[in-house]
Amino acid sequence: MAQKPSIPKGTRDFGPDEMIKRTYIFDTIKSVFRTYGFLPLETPAMENLSTLLGKYGDEGDKLLFKILNSGDFLSGVAPETLQDADANRNALSVKMCEKGLRYDLTVPFARYVVQHQNEISFPFRRYQIQPVWRADRPQKGRYREFFQCDVDIIGSRSLLNEVELIEIVAAVFKKLGIRIALKMNNRKILYGIAETIGHADKMTDITVAIDKLEKIGIEAVNEELLSKGISEQAVAALQPILSLNGTNREKLRQLRAVIGGSETGIAGIDEMETIFGYVEALGTELDIELDLSLARGLNYYTGAIFEVKAKDFAIGSICGGGRYDDLTGIFGMPGMSGVGISFGADRIYDVMCGLCLYPEEAGVTTRVLFLNFGETEQPAALRAMKQLRAAGIPCEMYPDAAKMKKQMEYANRRAIPLVVIIGSDELAAGNATVKNMATGEQQAVPLAELAARLQ
Amino acid sequence: MAQKPSIPKGTRDFGPDEMIKRTYIFDTIKSVFRTYGFLPLETPAMENLSTLLGKYGDEGDKLLFKILNSGDFLSGVAPETLQDADANRNALSVKMCEKGLRYDLTVPFARYVVQHQNEISFPFRRYQIQPVWRADRPQKGRYREFFQCDVDIIGSRSLLNEVELIEIVAAVFKKLGIRIALKMNNRKILYGIAETIGHADKMTDITVAIDKLEKIGIEAVNEELLSKGISEQAVAALQPILSLNGTNREKLRQLRAVIGGSETGIAGIDEMETIFGYVEALGTELDIELDLSLARGLNYYTGAIFEVKAKDFAIGSICGGGRYDDLTGIFGMPGMSGVGISFGADRIYDVMCGLCLYPEEAGVTTRVLFLNFGETEQPAALRAMKQLRAAGIPCEMYPDAAKMKKQMEYANRRAIPLVVIIGSDELAAGNATVKNMATGEQQAVPLAELAARLQ
Repeated sequence: MAQKPSIPKGTRDFGPDEMIKRTYIFDTIKSVFRTYGFLPLETPAMENLSTLLGKYGDEGDKLLFKILNSGDFLSGVAPETLQDADANRNALSVKMCEKGLRYDLTVPFARYVVQHQNEISFPFRRYQIQPVWRADRPQKGRYREFFQCDVDIIGSRSLLNEVELIEIVAAVFKKLGIRIALKMNNRKILYGIAETIGHADKMTDITVAIDKLEKIGIEAVNEELLSKGISEQAVAALQPILSLNGTNREKLRQLRAVIGGSETGIAGIDEMETIFGYVEALGTELDIELDLSLARGLNYYTGAIFEVKAKDFAIGSICGGGRYDDLTGIFGMPGMSGVGISFGADRIYDVMCGLCLYPEEAGVTTRVLFLNFGETEQPAALRAMKQLRAAGIPCEMYPDAAKMKKQMEYANRRAIPLVVIIGSDELAAGNATVKNMATGEQQAVPLAELAARLQ
Repeated sequence: MAQKPSIPKGTRDFGPDEMIKRTYIFDTIKSVFRTYGFLPLETPAMENLSTLLGKYGDEGDKLLFKILNSGDFLSGVAPETLQDADANRNALSVKMCEKGLRYDLTVPFARYVVQHQNEISFPFRRYQIQPVWRADRPQKGRYREFFQCDVDIIGSRSLLNEVELIEIVAAVFKKLGIRIALKMNNRKILYGIAETIGHADKMTDITVAIDKLEKIGIEAVNEELLSKGISEQAVAALQPILSLNGTNREKLRQLRAVIGGSETGIAGIDEMETIFGYVEALGTELDIELDLSLARGLNYYTGAIFEVKAKDFAIGSICGGGRYDDLTGIFGMPGMSGVGISFGADRIYDVMCGLCLYPEEAGVTTRVLFLNFGETEQPAALRAMKQLRAAGIPCEMYPDAAKMKKQMEYANRRAIPLVVIIGSDELAAGNATVKNMATGEQQAVPLAELAARLQ
C-alpha cells in the first residue's frame, strides 16, 4: 500500500520557511493596499468554463485546467463523439467538463463586478490575492500554480487612479526594500505612432520591433519593420521616435511634434503629462521612465501601461498593469473603465531571497522553548508558558521529557532564540534559567517576572 | 458575446464585507496558533490522484474533483475502454485524470511529512489554512469549496500535546467571543467498552447507538443494539455505562470499575485522567465534558477525540479532531503518532454573524474619504493623504470631481466614518474641514496637523 509520495509537476509545497517569507511579502502588500482604501475580494478556484473560455486567446484556452464533471461525466456526450474521440477531443473535453480552474484574477474580477453590480459602490477599489493555475510547461521560475496579487479601481476614468497605483508601487517596494524602476507607456501613444506612419493596423509589430532597439540596434529594427510589410516611407517617419531622448517631459514634447496629427496619440500624450504632473506635485520618490517600447501582452489595455523592474537583481518584470476601458463588456456590462496592477509574488520572493532583504524578525516563529524535565517540573513550565502566551510571546515546551541534548538540538534546528530551563533547582528557588542560544549566556529570572522580562 | 455570468453551484464569492469578517476569524486563529509555536504550511490545490484515492473511503473517492490531463487526455486510454465508455467510466476517468483537487488538509499533510521527513524537525507543529473541494450535493451550509484550519503536532506521543490543543481551543474561542463546550472521548475507551461486552468488532454500532441515548431514550437504544446482533447479555453489561454520571473524574472512576478487564480501555481511561489532570492544574477556563457517545467519523483516530459546540447558537460542531497513531503509514512511514484539530471556519463565521460578535473596528476599511473638488484643490488633498497613509490611516479620495451629493453618498454606502473637505475656503485658510459622518459634526483642522489629529 505504501507509495512514494510526490506532487504534480509545476506545483509546490510551501514549508514553514517559505511560508513565513511569503506571508511577510503578502502582509506588506496587503497593508499598503488597505492604507489606500482597497477592499479585499476572493473568488472561487473553480469558474464555469464558459466564463473562462475565449478570454485568453487560443493559447490560453489550451492552458486552462478543466475539471471533470462529477458523477456521470459522459451523460452529455453523444455516442458519435466517443466513436471518434480523438478527432473530437476539444468538443469531448467541453462536454465532460463544465468547470475550470481560475487562470488569472482579472476575468473572475470582471465576472464578479457584473454579477454583483447592484451591490457594489463604484468606483470599486478591490484587491485580490489568490493562486491561479495554468497548464504551462513547467520550467525554472514558471509554475502551474502560482499566486497573483491584483489591485484595481473600476468605474472611474480619472487619472488620479493611475497616480494612486504609482504611489502603491512606490510604497510596496519601499517597504520591502527593493529598489525599482517603473516603466510606463500608453496604448493611445502606441496607436498614435502606428497611425501617424500610416500603419494603424500594425501597432503590435511596430511595438515589438521598437522593443528590440537596445538589443539589436536601429538598423536591425528597421529591417524587421520592413520585413513585417511596413513601407520604407513609414519606417523613415518612425526614425525621430526611435531616437527620442531626455526627460519624460522632453520625450512627450518631441513626441507631440511627431504624432500631433493623431487625435488618439495626442490624448495619450495628454494623459501621460497629467499623470507625470501629479506624480511630481506629490514628490513621489520613484524612477519613472516613459518607455515607448513597452507594450505588455494583454489586449484589453487601452491607456496607460506599467511595468516594474528590480534594479539590483536580474529577473523579468515583478509588477505590471494598465488601464482598460471595457473589461466587463464581454459579460454584458459595457463602459466600465478601470485600471489595475498585479504584483508578481513569486518573482518578488526570488528578488527578496537573492538580495537577503527579509528582516531578521520575519524568520522568528517560536521565541522561547521550555525544556521538559518530566511530570514534577512540567506544571510550573506550563503555567509560565500560559503567561508568556497571554503576553503574545510565541513559546512551546518540548512535549517529551527527552534527553537535554535532544531538546537543545530541537531548539537549534528550529532556530528558537531563547531556551527556558525550569528544573528542580530552579523550582526550589522560584526561578527560571533563561539561555540565549546565540551567545550561550544564561540568566536566572524569578518565575513571576518571566513574561515581563521576555517581552 | 454577452453572457449572464454565474459561478459553479456550491462555490462562493467572498465580497469585501465577508472577506473582512473571514479575515478577522482567520487572523485571530492564526495569532493563537503562532503564540503556541505552530508553523505555517501550504500544499498545492492539486495532488496526484494516487495520493488522494482510497484515503477517504469509497464515498470520498466519488467526491473527489478530478482534473482532466492537459493536452492529449486520451493518450493513455485504450480503444476498448472508449468503445464501452459508460461501463468503464471509473477506469476512463482515472486514465484521463492524473490529478485531483485537495479533499482535506490531513492527507496532504501526511504526504508532506513523508516527502520532507529529512528536513522536518520533529515533533512538527504545523498549521494549515486552505480551501478544500468536495463534489458533495450543495445545500444550505454545505459547499463544494470551503476552508479548513488545521493544527497538528506530529512525531510525539506526549499527552501534553492534547493539552496544548485544548488550550488553543479555549484561547481561540475566548478571543472570538464564542462561548463553547468541549466534548471529549477516547477511542481506546470505546474499544474497551466493546471488548468488555464481548463485541470488540462492533465498536461503531455500539457508539452510534449510545449516541442516540438523549434523543430516543434507553429502551430504544437497547432495541437498536439487539437489532445490530449484539447479545442480550452484552446489552445488559452495557447498562451501567449508559447511566454514568457525575464529574469527568467520577465518570472515569465508574468506567474503570466496569471495563477494568480491557487493557486498551484502561489505557484510554489513564490517558483521559492525565489530560484532565493537566487541564485542572493549568486552570483552563473551559467546560470540558467526557462524552462517551462521541465517536467522530474518521477511522484514523486512535486515542483522545475532541468536538466543540457553540453554547449560544444552534449549529453542528465548530471544531474537532483527535489523536492518530498511523497517519503516514499509508505513504510508507509507520509509527508517527500525532494529534490535531480542525476549526470549521464557515460555521464559525455563521456563529459570529448570528451572535453579532464582530468587533466594530473589524468592519472599518477606509477611515477617511477626501472629497474631490477638482484640479486646483486636489494637490493639497493628495499631499494630506500621503501623510495620513504614512501614519497608517487608510484613506482615499473620490477619484472624480463629481457632485458633492454623489461623493457623500459614496462615503455613506462604504460606511466611511470621516470625510475631509479641502475646498477653496479651506485652502485659503490652510485648513481642512473634518466631518464625522455618524454625528454630522464638522471641525476645522490645520492641514499640517491633520494626520496627527486623525490618528
